[in-house]
Amino acid sequence: MADDAKQYALDKHKEWHGKIEVVSRASINTPEELAVAYTPGVAQPCLEIKKDVEDSYTYTRRGNLVAVVTDGSAVLGLGDIGPEAGMPVMEGKCALFKTFADVDAFPLCIRSHDVDEIVRTVELLAGSFGGVNLEDISAPRCFEIERRLKEVCDIPVFHDDQHGTAVVTCAALINACKLTGRELGSVKAVFSGAGAAGISIARLMRRMGVRDIVICDRKGAIYEGREGLNPVKEEVASWTNREHVAGTLADAVRDADVFVGVSAPGALTQDMVRSMAKDAIVFACANPVPEIMPDEALAAGAAVAATGRSDFPNQINNVLAFPGIFRGALDVRASDINDDMMEAAAYAIAGLVDDEHRSAEYVIPGAFDQRVAPAVAAAVAEAARKSGVARL
Amino acid sequence: MADDAKQYALDKHKEWHGKIEVVSRASINTPEELAVAYTPGVAQPCLEIKKDVEDSYTYTRRGNLVAVVTDGSAVLGLGDIGPEAGMPVMEGKCALFKTFADVDAFPLCIRSHDVDEIVRTVELLAGSFGGVNLEDISAPRCFEIERRLKEVCDIPVFHDDQHGTAVVTCAALINACKLTGRELGSVKAVFSGAGAAGISIARLMRRMGVRDIVICDRKGAIYEGREGLNPVKEEVASWTNREHVAGTLADAVRDADVFVGVSAPGALTQDMVRSMAKDAIVFACANPVPEIMPDEALAAGAAVAATGRSDFPNQINNVLAFPGIFRGALDVRASDINDDMMEAAAYAIAGLVDDEHRSAEYVIPGAFDQRVAPAVAAAVAEAARKSGVARL
Repeated sequence: MADDAKQYALDKHKEWHGKIEVVSRASINTPEELAVAYTPGVAQPCLEIKKDVEDSYTYTRRGNLVAVVTDGSAVLGLGDIGPEAGMPVMEGKCALFKTFADVDAFPLCIRSHDVDEIVRTVELLAGSFGGVNLEDISAPRCFEIERRLKEVCDIPVFHDDQHGTAVVTCAALINACKLTGRELGSVKAVFSGAGAAGISIARLMRRMGVRDIVICDRKGAIYEGREGLNPVKEEVASWTNREHVAGTLADAVRDADVFVGVSAPGALTQDMVRSMAKDAIVFACANPVPEIMPDEALAAGAAVAATGRSDFPNQINNVLAFPGIFRGALDVRASDINDDMMEAAAYAIAGLVDDEHRSAEYVIPGAFDQRVAPAVAAAVAEAARKSGVARL
Repeated sequence: MADDAKQYALDKHKEWHGKIEVVSRASINTPEELAVAYTPGVAQPCLEIKKDVEDSYTYTRRGNLVAVVTDGSAVLGLGDIGPEAGMPVMEGKCALFKTFADVDAFPLCIRSHDVDEIVRTVELLAGSFGGVNLEDISAPRCFEIERRLKEVCDIPVFHDDQHGTAVVTCAALINACKLTGRELGSVKAVFSGAGAAGISIARLMRRMGVRDIVICDRKGAIYEGREGLNPVKEEVASWTNREHVAGTLADAVRDADVFVGVSAPGALTQDMVRSMAKDAIVFACANPVPEIMPDEALAAGAAVAATGRSDFPNQINNVLAFPGIFRGALDVRASDINDDMMEAAAYAIAGLVDDEHRSAEYVIPGAFDQRVAPAVAAAVAEAARKSGVARL
C-alpha cells in the first residue's frame, strides 16, 4: 500500500472509533417501556428460557449472533500480533457479517495461545451465541481447537481461514473446469502450501470429486512415509498423492491441470506454468503478492487465473462465503456447519456465474454481487436440513 | 404482575428478537471501502496497536465497550436460572447502558459457577473490552470474583448489584438526611439483609461518614464473635455494630434513624417503624414486594420512604448509577472504579435534587431524569482523575 493509503486507513479507523457498535433494539424512554424491557417484565422470557433453553433463540439475540474468536496468533499476513492488535480485523469481519448477511457478530480476542484455555473459554460462552467463527488462529492449533469445539458446542463452529477459503476456491474451480472442458473427477490439482487453508481446500476438492491431489510444502511434495511429517501432514499424506511422488513443486506441477497457491509470493514461475497441462487453471492466492501475477500466468499459457486481490479479475474472497453460510446455518438453527453445507455453498456461488457470462475473467462472482449471500444461505439451509443438522 | 402484562412482556421480547444488535459503523458498499475497513487497510491500525496496546482505545470500539458478565446464578429474584435464561436481563442491562449513557455493552453469560473459571474467562477477554460489569452472580462467590478480577484486569470491574445499589441508596440517604435535619456522622443505620447489596451499601455509607451501622441477617444482628458467621460476615462484624449488640431486627431498629431493607417482603412492621427515632428514614428495597409498603411506613411515623418500585415515589433504581459511572470511567480511560468514584457518583445524583424541590416524595431523581447520567459521568471522571486511576 502507498503511504497515503496507509494514512487514510488509519485516519478512517480513528474516525470510526470502532467498526462495530452495540445498539438497543428496545425503546426504553418511559417507565412503562422500562418495566417491559427490564424489571419486572423481563422475568417472563427468563422463565420461559429456564423451562426450555431453545427459547433463548426466540427471546434473545442468540439466534442471530456469531462470536468471531481469535487469539491474535495469525492475523492477516502480520503473524502473532496479539489479541488487542487483532481486533481491527475482527471488528472488520463483524462489520462484513452485518453488511453482507445481517448477521450480528461480536469479536472476542482471547489473551491466551493455550488450546485448552481457548476451547474452554469459547465453550463456556457458547450459550450466549448462535454460532462461532474462528479466525486467524495459527496452525496446527487451529485444527485441534476447531475439532474440540465442534465436539463440545451445541452451536455451529466454523474456521473461516480454512473452510471459507475452501468454499470460494472450489466455487471458482467448478467454473474454471466448465470453462476449460474439464470434469472435477479427472483433474490433477497441485497445491503450494500445506497450511490450514491449503489442507481445507484440498479436502473439499476431494469431497467434490477431485481424485488426484498433490500438496507441496517448503520441502516439496508431501507423500506417505516422507520423513519428519507432523501429524497433520501425515494425515494429509494418507489421502493425497496416491502415487507417492517425491520432488519439488516444479516437479509436481508438471502436467497438472490446476495449481492452488496458498503459500508465498513468487512460488510459481512462468516456466512452471508452461510445464502444466494445456489450458491450465492457476489460483495464486498468497496475499497481497500472489505466487504468480495473473497476467504472467496467462501469458505463460494458463487459461484461467485467480488471486486474492481485488484489483484483478476472479478474486477469491471469503466474503462470498462466510456471511451466507452463517446466515443459512442460523436460519435453520443448525447445530453444525458440515461438509454437505460447505459443498452446497460452493455450488451456490459457482451457480451464479451462468453459461452465457462465464469467461476467463469471470469464474467467480464479485464480492459485492448481492445475489451471493442469499443464494449461499438458501443452499446451506437446505443442505443443513437434508443432512439432519437443522433444528428448524 | 397481571397475566396480561406478563403476556405483553413475552410478546414484546419475541417481537424484539433480542434487545441488542451489533451494527457496523463502517460503510462497506464498494471495493474501495472494503479495502479500507478490511484488507489491506486494516493492517495499519493492527500494526499501531501492536506497537502500543493503548492505541486499541483509539482504533477499535474497546474504549466504549463494557462486558456485562453473569453466570446466571442470582438473576433478579428468580435465583439460579442458568446463563441462557439470564440473557434477557443481561440484554436489558446492555440496552440501558446504550439508552442512558451511549455505552456499548455486550452480554456474556458463562456456563460455569466455578469462581476460577469465571475469573479466567473474563481475564482472557479483558483485552476486548474497556470495562466489566458483573451482574446477578450469587454471594459469596461474587465478592471473590470481583476482588480477583480487579487484581488481574487492567480495566475497571464493577459489580452493579453491590455498588450500583450502594451509590443510589447513599444518594437517597444524603437527601433524606438533609430533609430530616440529620448529619451522616450522627445517624444510626440498621440493615435487614446481609447479602451483596446490603454489605456494599453499608460499606459506602461508612465511607461517607455513617459510624453506627448494624446489619441483621435472618438470625438477627451480626456482631463480632457471633457463632457460625461465614468469612464475609465475620469481616462485616469487624467494622459494624461496634457495641456488639445481639438481638432480633426488631431489637436493632429501636431508636435507629435509618432502616435499609435488602431482604424479604414484610421484614419491617409498622410497630418496628414506631420504635425508630422520630422522622425515621425507611428504605425498603426488596423487590417487587418491599420490607414494608411506603404508605405504611409513613403512616407509622417515618418521614421518608423509598423502595425499588417505579409505582411509588423515591425509586432506588440502579439505572441512576451504572450508565453514568461507566460513561465517566470510560471517558477518562480509568483503570478502576474505586470508592472515590462511587462516592462522587452518589453526591452527583443527590445534588440534582435541589433545596427547593427536596421533599419526602423527592429525595432521589427519577429514572428518566436526563441530567443524571451526564452529572454522574462528570463527577466520576473527576474523581478518577483525582484518585490517580484516570489514563486520560
